[in-house]
Amino acid sequence: MEEVTLQKMREHIGWESGDGILAPGGSISNLYAAMVARYNRFPEVKMRGMRAVPELAMFTSKDAHYSVKKSAAILGMGMDSVYLVDTDNRGKMLPEHLEQLIGLARSRGQEPFFVSATGGTTVLGAFDRWTRSRTCASGTGSGSTWTRPGRGGVLLSQRHRHLLAGVQRADSVTWNPHKLMGVTLQCSVILLPERHIGLLQGCNGMQADYLFQQDKQYDVSYDTGDKSIQCGRRNDIFKLWLSWRAKGDEGYGEQVDYLIDLANYLCQQLKKRPGYEMVMEKPDFVNVCFWYVPEKFRSMKPGPERDSVINELVKRDFPCGRWPQSEGADDGEWHHNGGLPTPRQPAELLPHDRVSNPAATEADIDFLLDCIEKYSAEIFDDQPDEAGLGGGGGPAQ
Amino acid sequence: MEEVTLQKMREHIGWESGDGILAPGGSISNLYAAMVARYNRFPEVKMRGMRAVPELAMFTSKDAHYSVKKSAAILGMGMDSVYLVDTDNRGKMLPEHLEQLIGLARSRGQEPFFVSATGGTTVLGAFDRWTRSRTCASGTGSGSTWTRPGRGGVLLSQRHRHLLAGVQRADSVTWNPHKLMGVTLQCSVILLPERHIGLLQGCNGMQADYLFQQDKQYDVSYDTGDKSIQCGRRNDIFKLWLSWRAKGDEGYGEQVDYLIDLANYLCQQLKKRPGYEMVMEKPDFVNVCFWYVPEKFRSMKPGPERDSVINELVKRDFPCGRWPQSEGADDGEWHHNGGLPTPRQPAELLPHDRVSNPAATEADIDFLLDCIEKYSAEIFDDQPDEAGLGGGGGPAQ
Repeated sequence: MEEVTLQKMREHIGWESGDGILAPGGSISNLYAAMVARYNRFPEVKMRGMRAVPELAMFTSKDAHYSVKKSAAILGMGMDSVYLVDTDNRGKMLPEHLEQLIGLARSRGQEPFFVSATGGTTVLGAFDRWTRSRTCASGTGSGSTWTRPGRGGVLLSQRHRHLLAGVQRADSVTWNPHKLMGVTLQCSVILLPERHIGLLQGCNGMQADYLFQQDKQYDVSYDTGDKSIQCGRRNDIFKLWLSWRAKGDEGYGEQVDYLIDLANYLCQQLKKRPGYEMVMEKPDFVNVCFWYVPEKFRSMKPGPERDSVINELVKRDFPCGRWPQSEGADDGEWHHNGGLPTPRQPAELLPHDRVSNPAATEADIDFLLDCIEKYSAEIFDDQPDEAGLGGGGGPAQ
Repeated sequence: MEEVTLQKMREHIGWESGDGILAPGGSISNLYAAMVARYNRFPEVKMRGMRAVPELAMFTSKDAHYSVKKSAAILGMGMDSVYLVDTDNRGKMLPEHLEQLIGLARSRGQEPFFVSATGGTTVLGAFDRWTRSRTCASGTGSGSTWTRPGRGGVLLSQRHRHLLAGVQRADSVTWNPHKLMGVTLQCSVILLPERHIGLLQGCNGMQADYLFQQDKQYDVSYDTGDKSIQCGRRNDIFKLWLSWRAKGDEGYGEQVDYLIDLANYLCQQLKKRPGYEMVMEKPDFVNVCFWYVPEKFRSMKPGPERDSVINELVKRDFPCGRWPQSEGADDGEWHHNGGLPTPRQPAELLPHDRVSNPAATEADIDFLLDCIEKYSAEIFDDQPDEAGLGGGGGPAQ
């Protein structure tokens, strides 16, 4: 079941065959990616450790998931070995800066061995320009280059799979079906192309023959335990296999399209309704980042000065990060009444929302925005007019 | 729920308070143990990697789980940095040899930083003599000393918790409730005593504030994500919490006692029935290791010569590790008819069995032994009498 499903995923990437294994989450998948990259370049590291190899350098977008840095800490390379590449105004890694950092690492005597190009960053949902980054990295003679599309489900959408164009040229791909594909935690995969078959086994195999006997009644290639950094594992593939059987490629493609359509609906609403400012005019993906500016501040010129006034008021009144108490309501009212299905970041006034629940509808989006406007009015109508902006009423406390 | 359950586990160890986190399996728990030990001794490793610290050395029993070596490979120390301590005839680490190996590592300029003392080895079920090992390690000036009782459930048995005597002196304890406590995979815990509170956070914390916001409506000490090497995690604590609520300390204690009693029943039967030879006369725990010698070989003197005759016959007739085909039965008959609930190791004729299913009864033990005898007779009665031992019938093929 695992073999069939992983093969299907590899085919969607564009690989005829290859290798792979399930991991307990995307962070551990990224750990695998860095670890097999290191082993591929310097197999002696397995027996002799980091002291036997040159000083290494890793590269990823500054907007990438923190697990890339965490991997460096775990693997004994140290977080200092991770170079964070600047991003453009759409959150995509700047290939020129990547090239520059690779050169910098080399000039310090470090060995660049791993580039993690993100597919769907956490906040902006950015997909790094893989092909250009790869070309720039190759230009510097960087050895291995690897990618990490956290949201591999986008490959199942004919309309949107271009976001991961060129992904088949990667040396490894991590894919988290617990995200876009809606499989429950944990369900994360690390995949390798045909040329890297055997790498997982070489890197992680311990030949613990008291556990992994080779004298089975079946084809022992189905025994994948020795390729894992775990011993016993949950059967995480089953739920993915089952939902894929139920939905099919087409059903999953439609699900991805629907989520992106819903994110587009959110964008349209944000443009229609007063007070919203978008971080990016047209997001690529399901992440929609925006600010809501309460009515009384809208007369101020947009910019750092206005933002700092809003932030100061928010910080002053919610010093412990608590939302205000309405009469008769407990602290959690905003959540308990089904209010805000969005990460609460009061210091920056709700800057991002991610559409990832395929059961959500346009009505849910409307409800979300209604809530933002209603509670914002309740909060700021009660503010004394310290900023001299008009509006406001009773005492702050 | 996690906090309550981990605290309960710590109290059973003998710690008033402390820290801990759930991990996806015992191997990853052991990885945590080695990683926090390294960080405790050399916090600079997090930022600057293994190049910033002295060459390190780890120590564990040669019968310990392979994950200790795997941890060394992952963490960039290299498997060569793991010293395997000899064991006595009951599978327990020899404290004198540990002391000697620590001295050897020092003489090579390595820094001993981690001793993993096993609680229940995979094959023999041995519990290392913790207190003596610790004393020997201290004598050499070894820095941190840590333990790994895979089968922490034994602490819940008043009759048997002495097997882990002194465990409260460890610097970390990994406990796998998916073993003796019968919780389904995955459910594994790493626990730290009070003096190491903050170590997990320090070692693994990334302060990824775009994910782990501190402005929550609840006590943020309940946000344990940043202490983990994962990001999103399964709620593995729930099933443990629930079964502990259902069974209680007393129920779990009785379960452990029952399993050990059942293992003792197996030992009694092995002594009563002809043809069985025990590896250890009286096992400490639920692992019972034994050989079964088919009738036709019993006239031979026990020893390497007899064992080699048996092994040769087994290898010749089961070259691919397949069990023989009985008439009308497929390869898997032995398993399919509910036959042998035991690891199949034909080359050494069923040397070990572990009693870990609390639903098993004495009748199941009897059935297991009946099967061994029945199938063994079927196999060896058909052998030509090449060894000149009498018995046997038709052609081998």
